[in-house]
Amino acid sequence: MCCGRAISATEDVAGRPLSEFERVARFFAPLAAPGALGLVDDVALIDGPPGEQYVLKTDAIVEGVDFLPGTPADQVAQKLLRVNLSDLAAKGAAPLGYLLVTALPRSLGEDWLAAFAAGLAKDQATYGIGLLGGDMSAIDGPITLSIAAIGRVAAGRAVLRSGARPGDLVYVSGTLGDAALGLAVQQGRLALPDATAREFLIDRYHLPQPRLALGQRLAGLAHAMLDVSDGLVADLGHLCDASGVGATVEAALLPLSAAALPAVNGDRHWLQAALGGGDDYELLFSAPQEAAPAIAALARETGLRVTAIGRIAEGSGVRVLDRDGAELPVEHAGYRHF
Amino acid sequence: MCCGRAISATEDVAGRPLSEFERVARFFAPLAAPGALGLVDDVALIDGPPGEQYVLKTDAIVEGVDFLPGTPADQVAQKLLRVNLSDLAAKGAAPLGYLLVTALPRSLGEDWLAAFAAGLAKDQATYGIGLLGGDMSAIDGPITLSIAAIGRVAAGRAVLRSGARPGDLVYVSGTLGDAALGLAVQQGRLALPDATAREFLIDRYHLPQPRLALGQRLAGLAHAMLDVSDGLVADLGHLCDASGVGATVEAALLPLSAAALPAVNGDRHWLQAALGGGDDYELLFSAPQEAAPAIAALARETGLRVTAIGRIAEGSGVRVLDRDGAELPVEHAGYRHF
Repeated sequence: MCCGRAISATEDVAGRPLSEFERVARFFAPLAAPGALGLVDDVALIDGPPGEQYVLKTDAIVEGVDFLPGTPADQVAQKLLRVNLSDLAAKGAAPLGYLLVTALPRSLGEDWLAAFAAGLAKDQATYGIGLLGGDMSAIDGPITLSIAAIGRVAAGRAVLRSGARPGDLVYVSGTLGDAALGLAVQQGRLALPDATAREFLIDRYHLPQPRLALGQRLAGLAHAMLDVSDGLVADLGHLCDASGVGATVEAALLPLSAAALPAVNGDRHWLQAALGGGDDYELLFSAPQEAAPAIAALARETGLRVTAIGRIAEGSGVRVLDRDGAELPVEHAGYRHF
Repeated sequence: MCCGRAISATEDVAGRPLSEFERVARFFAPLAAPGALGLVDDVALIDGPPGEQYVLKTDAIVEGVDFLPGTPADQVAQKLLRVNLSDLAAKGAAPLGYLLVTALPRSLGEDWLAAFAAGLAKDQATYGIGLLGGDMSAIDGPITLSIAAIGRVAAGRAVLRSGARPGDLVYVSGTLGDAALGLAVQQGRLALPDATAREFLIDRYHLPQPRLALGQRLAGLAHAMLDVSDGLVADLGHLCDASGVGATVEAALLPLSAAALPAVNGDRHWLQAALGGGDDYELLFSAPQEAAPAIAALARETGLRVTAIGRIAEGSGVRVLDRDGAELPVEHAGYRHF
């Protein structure tokens, strides 16, 4: 079971109400069905046709929380679909289809709906999926959308969060921090002189790239996997918690895009975007040392960067080390809603 | 694909914007996957383990639209679950589990969540289902909830909307109009002297009874089926449209509860509650004349009223006839959102 994230800021830990994770653990984990993996894996598995399982996943996005007011409707549709497909990718599943729930303010006209549907249609073609059903409501509030996505995986091959073992290397696909920097650029909190870099980063915020091909090829290689939606350190923490292990990450190894590099190198604050910023939607996984050549080959075949950034160890929690081996503080390990 | 309904009133048909059904047809039907039945059946079917299919259904409820502000959280949870289970019942499916999406105002505290979870737990026990996953968001707006429910049905046995044939009898389970009257009582639009009747009707509004046992037993007997959520005439219209037929209903045959009877008999306006009021969540189906004895036996076994109220015919549309065979106007055939 997953939690939403806020576009801005976090809250003080002292005297705070329960976090989303604590709320899920207290109120919803006791309700979990057998296939729900105790709600720690953000997906459920149910039996499919012979030799297959279905992976079920639901994720909502709310205007002003998960996307900025005024975002074009086609981009909203694509983000909605892709954040769900990213979770299927992280289990090694191939997407099949989705159910759609829309709660839309009455002020949105048919132009908005047409653009929204066009965004869905575009991504349906890209990812080879179809709409299985849905529900439309009117709301006197922000645009509120959710999808329940369903994917297929060979029986027993879904990559869970809980399989990481001490000694595993920790890998991440693509580059980190782009989306958080893109949001900062769009909100005027970060000035970058290079227009191409600005556009790249903003695009990374609006349009996640679910790593479906890589995810499916990692089934059987990776011990544990999830997608980076809350931020690297928070999500690696979830993986470690589910696996009963700890992890160490070397900040110097974090994969950064050419667009992000100037900001991150120039200001320690923006390094935190790569460590703690959300919305990367890259795959984060652990795999044994001996899988390294196969993973390097996969990276070449899929044309994606896949970077070893640390290691799983006995214990618990995530430590981030600088070049000198000193522990770096992480400003916000995952967004918090309440 | 389904549409929300408004607690109050409808809109003028002249010069109106597209209805929900028209929006679905224009913008979303072109996106439908093969298993989505063209989005006309409100559910999708996908292959399950050998000999089985899964039925997928999603439905949202919004505070102030589908339930009254201030409704106790456990009742909200139960209504949310049950409106989805009712759709599974209408396909002849057995429920398996559900994904839950909550978008909750920050003002709702942990007491609310605890009561909400308790409502889910109670119904999970009643219906033998479990929580498969979910997503929690914060919203600066009304409580917005959705469920994607999944059920199982023997392969090829799901009862679709599209199977009605001329000559079929039209049946409905339970009684009609109770929920619409209960809402009117709660909103102070209908005064009833009998406190027990008032409570019964209000309860019928808050707590639908998904007719799962009856629905499963009707697979193989009924030609076409759905649940009455938008109102009898509107939903029978959906069934007729999907089947390419028309139907005639005799108002004198409508099954009314003892609580509803005084209101409906005393005032022609309240007869409309039985014809056009939503939220009944009873099964509406067509079956051939020769199935009548089996259906009567099923009614006895399940302890439910099952009433023949009319007949399917060639043509299109739904006509309601009074005792003299004259056509009765129907005030609002289904709620409209936009």
